[in-house]
Amino acid sequence: MNFTVSKTELNNALQTVSHAVSQNSPQAPLRGIKIEAKDGILILTGSDSDISIRKELRNDPEKPVLNIIEDGAALIETKYLLDIVRKIDSEEIRIEIIDGTLTKLSGNHAEFKINGMKPENYPNIDFSKPNKEFVLNQGLFKEIIAQTNFATSQKEAKPVLTGVNFIIRDGKLECTATDSYRLAKKVLPYSSEIECNITIPSRTLNEINSIILTDETKDISIYLNDRKVLFITDDILFQSKLLDGVYPDTNNLIPREFTRVLKISRHDLISAIDRTTFIKNDNMTVDRLECSQDELVLTNRNQEIGESREVLIGEFTGEPLDISFSGPYLMSAAKALRGNEVLIQFTGEMRPFILADPNDDSIMQLVLPVRTYN
Amino acid sequence: MNFTVSKTELNNALQTVSHAVSQNSPQAPLRGIKIEAKDGILILTGSDSDISIRKELRNDPEKPVLNIIEDGAALIETKYLLDIVRKIDSEEIRIEIIDGTLTKLSGNHAEFKINGMKPENYPNIDFSKPNKEFVLNQGLFKEIIAQTNFATSQKEAKPVLTGVNFIIRDGKLECTATDSYRLAKKVLPYSSEIECNITIPSRTLNEINSIILTDETKDISIYLNDRKVLFITDDILFQSKLLDGVYPDTNNLIPREFTRVLKISRHDLISAIDRTTFIKNDNMTVDRLECSQDELVLTNRNQEIGESREVLIGEFTGEPLDISFSGPYLMSAAKALRGNEVLIQFTGEMRPFILADPNDDSIMQLVLPVRTYN
Repeated sequence: MNFTVSKTELNNALQTVSHAVSQNSPQAPLRGIKIEAKDGILILTGSDSDISIRKELRNDPEKPVLNIIEDGAALIETKYLLDIVRKIDSEEIRIEIIDGTLTKLSGNHAEFKINGMKPENYPNIDFSKPNKEFVLNQGLFKEIIAQTNFATSQKEAKPVLTGVNFIIRDGKLECTATDSYRLAKKVLPYSSEIECNITIPSRTLNEINSIILTDETKDISIYLNDRKVLFITDDILFQSKLLDGVYPDTNNLIPREFTRVLKISRHDLISAIDRTTFIKNDNMTVDRLECSQDELVLTNRNQEIGESREVLIGEFTGEPLDISFSGPYLMSAAKALRGNEVLIQFTGEMRPFILADPNDDSIMQLVLPVRTYN
Repeated sequence: MNFTVSKTELNNALQTVSHAVSQNSPQAPLRGIKIEAKDGILILTGSDSDISIRKELRNDPEKPVLNIIEDGAALIETKYLLDIVRKIDSEEIRIEIIDGTLTKLSGNHAEFKINGMKPENYPNIDFSKPNKEFVLNQGLFKEIIAQTNFATSQKEAKPVLTGVNFIIRDGKLECTATDSYRLAKKVLPYSSEIECNITIPSRTLNEINSIILTDETKDISIYLNDRKVLFITDDILFQSKLLDGVYPDTNNLIPREFTRVLKISRHDLISAIDRTTFIKNDNMTVDRLECSQDELVLTNRNQEIGESREVLIGEFTGEPLDISFSGPYLMSAAKALRGNEVLIQFTGEMRPFILADPNDDSIMQLVLPVRTYN
């Protein structure tokens, strides 16, 4: 193997595939990034066996970024590869195998010889396209992730809740995340030839989110079967295992009729809750909201530390209400909405309540109240 | 106690005094910041018993920032105080004691009641001025810290080496830091009525450095005796214990005559060494520099990982030299110099060598070579 490549392009490509690498993997080959030069294409692969990323660099006659002199393959520990390529002070980097797995990287006056691993020990990763496909705008896909992924469960007790459920059916795309104490749901009109019901791990969504750009003009293709999902965009193939198990049907948990509604500035609500979070009870911040048509009061209290009390400005309609909830949960729900105002819709003091955007009915955030013993 | 104060001024003052607070102090009162309103002045105090900081806020008739309605004192846990004051959404904050140690902070529509501690349990800190005084320009003082403090020892085995030694004598100010493997020395002409020889803890210098501004027009007054140093600037009193013990005389360790000199771009040297640091032997990065009038070669080698080799561009005079040293030590010495070029002055392969700034003879960095068994 022997090629020269643009430092910038190689560096970006390595950053991309390194998102899949677990540098402390018990399987030594997976600590590395595999580099293949073949048929005029440079292929970089990183994987932790749950997530695998493949990025291709091609020579562009308009903008020469790659010149393969001899085909071949190398497997090099990720941390050394990233560190060296980042620090080489040259627009062009040459990479060549000089003896067995000993690989030389050079640029400007500096050269680095790294003892690589045998590329044939790298697992054979099947990047073939599953037969179901749907397409999303990249900006929209990032927005779905931002509005739902935070609400997934961190606990492994119910593994299927550690991901976001995507359902395509009846002309709609429905994306749901819940940890049993809150729920985020994004529903969009979506006409498609396929139906699907898959649950994508939260970590997969975080990683794909950090790789793709907020580009409103670009689409991402999503291929899937029962076991895996493959995202394709910009010469990047990103695939992930799906979560096993049946995702619970959450639609009947969501109240549809409300007895009280509070309309409030989203920014003011977030700031007010943020101010109460210095008080923690058993490491939780439980806020209490007392609403009447005269006054809206947000309080938090702890025997040892003290208390906070803030009068909120908003429009409340309905019978007076006294409800307690996790401050951070309400805050992240409000942060996941857009627009200046938020509608908080209640049915009762011990019933789940909903945060909605008055100008966007595609997104809904549900929060369960917390029972208190004040 | 009852007063109103500008949020910005109070927040800045709390940030300043919190530098002295250790929030996990075994002495509960020291986890707090003491607030005293007295004679039209607001006094904030923080301390971990090694370092103590006192900041005064006064009412300025031109710019009213403080209005004391009733004198008094409070002692409030630092983390709550910082968090609340930072988050209060109001230009003016009112602080008043409402019952015993229960203290109310309020601004805009929000109020917070905090269970404080008894201010009379706070240790009585003597901020009186020791009788020796000298004065430094703030910008110069920050530069002294930047150029020496990194070279102090991290090990408690020789406590006196964990600080920077300041000597005023014979019309000079001499500032020295060493961990026995490297040494940084700044010597400035300084005419003073006093003589002194004190060692200021490294942490003290880091904290005072983060509090004072790089203001070339302002001075800092430094008062000292055998036990403590007191810095005064801008209504801030910052005092610290000094390190006990006699600081070693390092002047006879510093070579004065050199057999070889390398003149090289400081930036290129730092970058080249940085590129070699991906290789670590026993968690140290040992670089080898081979100099002759024909070629300057920087290498680093590790059986398992691989090797780096870089040709440096510079002017070398003297007999050929083959010397090994800690890469990070040379790099931080070079970073602590200024100017585009650095002179590296050698006497022999196993003798300490010196990094100097060709345009500033006030600063000197010494590095010991490392014996290698390649």
